[in-house]
Amino acid sequence: MNIPQTSFPRVVIIGGGFAGLAAAKGLEKQELQVVLLDKHNYHTFQPLLYQVATGGLEPDSIAFPLRKRFNDVDNFYFRLAEVDKINTDTNTIETSIGNLEYDELIIATGSTTNFFGNTNIQKYAMEMKSVPQSLNIRSLILENFEEALLTSNYEERKALMNFVIVGGGPTGVELAGALAEMKKGILPKDYPDLDIRQMQINLIQSSGEILKGMSSQASEKAEDFLIKLGVNVWKNLRVLDYDGKTVTTNGEDHFKAETVIWAAGVKGQTIDGLEAECVIERAARIKVNEYNQVLNYTNIYAIGDVACMSNEKNPYGHPMMAQPAIQQGKLVAKNIIAKLFNKELKPFVYNDKGSMATIGRNKAVVDLPKWKFQGIFAWFVWMFVHLFSLIGFRNRAIVFLNWVYNYIRFDRETRLIIRPFKKKNFYSFKD
Amino acid sequence: MNIPQTSFPRVVIIGGGFAGLAAAKGLEKQELQVVLLDKHNYHTFQPLLYQVATGGLEPDSIAFPLRKRFNDVDNFYFRLAEVDKINTDTNTIETSIGNLEYDELIIATGSTTNFFGNTNIQKYAMEMKSVPQSLNIRSLILENFEEALLTSNYEERKALMNFVIVGGGPTGVELAGALAEMKKGILPKDYPDLDIRQMQINLIQSSGEILKGMSSQASEKAEDFLIKLGVNVWKNLRVLDYDGKTVTTNGEDHFKAETVIWAAGVKGQTIDGLEAECVIERAARIKVNEYNQVLNYTNIYAIGDVACMSNEKNPYGHPMMAQPAIQQGKLVAKNIIAKLFNKELKPFVYNDKGSMATIGRNKAVVDLPKWKFQGIFAWFVWMFVHLFSLIGFRNRAIVFLNWVYNYIRFDRETRLIIRPFKKKNFYSFKD
Repeated sequence: MNIPQTSFPRVVIIGGGFAGLAAAKGLEKQELQVVLLDKHNYHTFQPLLYQVATGGLEPDSIAFPLRKRFNDVDNFYFRLAEVDKINTDTNTIETSIGNLEYDELIIATGSTTNFFGNTNIQKYAMEMKSVPQSLNIRSLILENFEEALLTSNYEERKALMNFVIVGGGPTGVELAGALAEMKKGILPKDYPDLDIRQMQINLIQSSGEILKGMSSQASEKAEDFLIKLGVNVWKNLRVLDYDGKTVTTNGEDHFKAETVIWAAGVKGQTIDGLEAECVIERAARIKVNEYNQVLNYTNIYAIGDVACMSNEKNPYGHPMMAQPAIQQGKLVAKNIIAKLFNKELKPFVYNDKGSMATIGRNKAVVDLPKWKFQGIFAWFVWMFVHLFSLIGFRNRAIVFLNWVYNYIRFDRETRLIIRPFKKKNFYSFKD
Repeated sequence: MNIPQTSFPRVVIIGGGFAGLAAAKGLEKQELQVVLLDKHNYHTFQPLLYQVATGGLEPDSIAFPLRKRFNDVDNFYFRLAEVDKINTDTNTIETSIGNLEYDELIIATGSTTNFFGNTNIQKYAMEMKSVPQSLNIRSLILENFEEALLTSNYEERKALMNFVIVGGGPTGVELAGALAEMKKGILPKDYPDLDIRQMQINLIQSSGEILKGMSSQASEKAEDFLIKLGVNVWKNLRVLDYDGKTVTTNGEDHFKAETVIWAAGVKGQTIDGLEAECVIERAARIKVNEYNQVLNYTNIYAIGDVACMSNEKNPYGHPMMAQPAIQQGKLVAKNIIAKLFNKELKPFVYNDKGSMATIGRNKAVVDLPKWKFQGIFAWFVWMFVHLFSLIGFRNRAIVFLNWVYNYIRFDRETRLIIRPFKKKNFYSFKD
C-alpha cells in the first residue's frame, strides 16, 4: 500500500462516512499515523440522497472529496480500497490493494440494505444507500415515464407509473413525499400527454405506524402530510415478494409496478475475521462495549451503524443514524488519544438531540427532546440543520441555491438521465 | 410513438444540440406540430464539458432537461429515441421506438469523434463529446492517481501520471490547460506522497500550430500560456497508434501513457437512408444548399455540425462549432415558417462573431472580427459569454458560484469518482 512505517502508532479507519470521518478529524495533530480507507473517494451525505434520486439536487453537492478534507493534515493517508478481512492475530487487514498492519483499528463500515434473505427482491428492487444507487433511481423514474408515453396498453402504462416504496422509515417517507411533489408540480408539465392521475405512489409499512422511531405525534402528522400529498399509505402490510412485475403482500393487496424501492431495512456492513461470538445477529451489527471496543479486543473498535452497543436504554443498540455515528466517532478518537497518554477511557453516553423528517414543501416533523413540532417551522429547521451539516462551503452554497430556486419556482431541475439504468442493463452494476 | 396526427404539418427534428434546439425554439407558436427526438433527455452545453472532466463543474450544471424547455409549448412532442434510418420515399423515419412520418425533417444530429479508422485508438483512447464521456475522463484521471500511489515501479507510476491529449483544437487546448492547473493547485495537495513532477501533460498537434481556426496571434499566445503552465506542446507530430500502453508517432517520440484523450477530429453523425451522393466524404457531413436543404430534397434539412454547406468562403463547410449551428437552426425555422405562408426562403449567411478559447486562470484568447486580445480581459469575456450562453437561471447561477469559488480558493471541488471507469470495465460503456 506504500504507507511508510513510522515510530508513531498507526490507526486504521475503515470507512469515511459520518462515524469514520468524525474519528479521523478527532485524531488530527496527534503523535499518530492515521490511515483512512474507503471504497469511494468521497464522503456521502446520506440524508439528502433522496433529493438526488428525485432530481432536486446534483450528486456532487452532497458528496465531498475525502482527500480534500485532510489536505493539510500531516501523517494522514487516504487509500481507495475495499477491506476483505481482518487478521486479529497478526493485527493486519487484507484489502483490495494489499495488506496493512494496524496498531488501532476502527471499523466504521456503516450499513447496507437488508433484504432479509429475499433474493428476488434484492434482484429487482432498487436501493438508495449511495450516490450511484440514487442516480439509478432517478434514471429509472424518468425512463419509466418516457416508456409510459409509448405504450397504448393501459395495464402496462399503469405499472410504469406505479411506484412502490417499501418501508415507512425516514428514507421511505422522504422519498414518497418527494415523488408526490414531482407528481404534483413537475411531471404533468413534462409529460402533458400522460394522464398523471394514473401515477400512484404506494408507501408500504409492515407495522401500524410510519416513522416508528419518532413520537406518535410526528408519525401521525407525517402520515397526514403524505395522504394530503396523494401518497397511498399502507400500514400493517408486509411485502412478501417482487418478481420484477408484481409486489405480493400478506394481505389481499398486490401491486403491479415497474419500480420498487426497498427502504425496509438496513444491516451492518460487517467484515470477515472477527470471532463469531462478537457478532450478534440482529441486523448483523458488531457487538461492542461502552468504549466501542469490539468484544475480546482492546485495539479494535466499531462505531456508527455497524456497531451494536446494547445497554438498558438501547437493548438493540443505538439507532442507525448520523448522530450516534458522529458522537461515537468523536469519542473513539478521544479515547485513542487518552490511551496514548495512559489516561482513562470514557464510556459512551448517547446525547439524543432529537430526530426529524421532511415530507415536502413546508411540511416536516421535528422531535426535540423537550419539544415536538410539525409544519412550516419544522421544515425550516430541517433545512437549516441539513444545510449546516453538509461539509464544505461550496456544497452548502450550491444546495442552498438549489433549494431557494426549487422553492420559488416549484421546480426540481436536475432531472437528467445521465446514466441510463434500464437500457444498458445496469442491473448488474446496481451499486 | 403515440404522437397524434393533426391537420398541422409535422416537423421532426433529430437532435437537441445547439442547432436542433435553436430550430425547435424558432418553430414555437406556429401552425405546426413539432417533434424533437434525442437519445438523451437533456441538452448538453458542450463547450464546458472539459470542466466536468477536470472536476471544476458538476455535470448537472451544464445540462438542461429538454422537456422543461418546452413545458409551455403547445403541439410540441419530445421523445427519447435514436434514429436508425430515413425513408425518403415514404417520408418516414425508423427509430428505436417505432416509425414516424414527417412533413419536414431537420437533421441536427451533430458530430461524433473521428478516429480516422484507427480501431486501436478508438478502443483505448477516451473521447469527450458527451456528459458520460466527460465523467469517464474525470474518473480515469483520479483512478490513475490512486493507482500511482500504490506502485513502487517507477515506469508504471510515470505512465499512470502521463496524460496525452491528441489534437490542438479548442477542446485539446482547454483540457490541457485545465489539467495543468490541477497539477499546479490541486493534485499536489491531494496526493502529497506522489512526486507531482512526474506528472506530464502532452498536447500533440499534427500541424505547425495549435488553435488552427484562430488568428496566429491567438495561436501563439495560447501556446505560450500552455508552456508557462507546464504543458509539453508537440507540434508537427502525428499520432499513429495507441495500444493502451504506448502512443507511437511519426517522429522519434513515443509516449508511455495510461490516459490518452483523443480530440483530434470530429465527423458528422450521419443517418442511413439519404442517397449516397448527398454525403461528401470530408468529415462525413451531409451536403446542403444555401437553405440547408439536403441535396435532392426540399423537405429534408441538415443543420449544424452534420451539415456541410460549401461556398467560396467556406469550401469545406462552416466550422463545426456552436455559432453556425445556432444560426442555421434559427434560419431553418424561419424558412419552414416562410414555406407555410408561401413566402420566399432566405439563404444562410454566416455571421462570424469570432471565437475564443480559455487556457486557465486569467488566461484566454479571443478573436473578434475587428479585435483580437489575450490574457485576463479575454478570460473575463470568455466567462461572461459562456455563462450567458447556458440555458436556465439555475445552471447559470450554479456555474457562476462554482467559478467564483474556484477562483478565490484555487480549487476544483467536484473531484469525485462517482462512476468508476477502470475497475468495473466501463470500457464497454464508453458513451
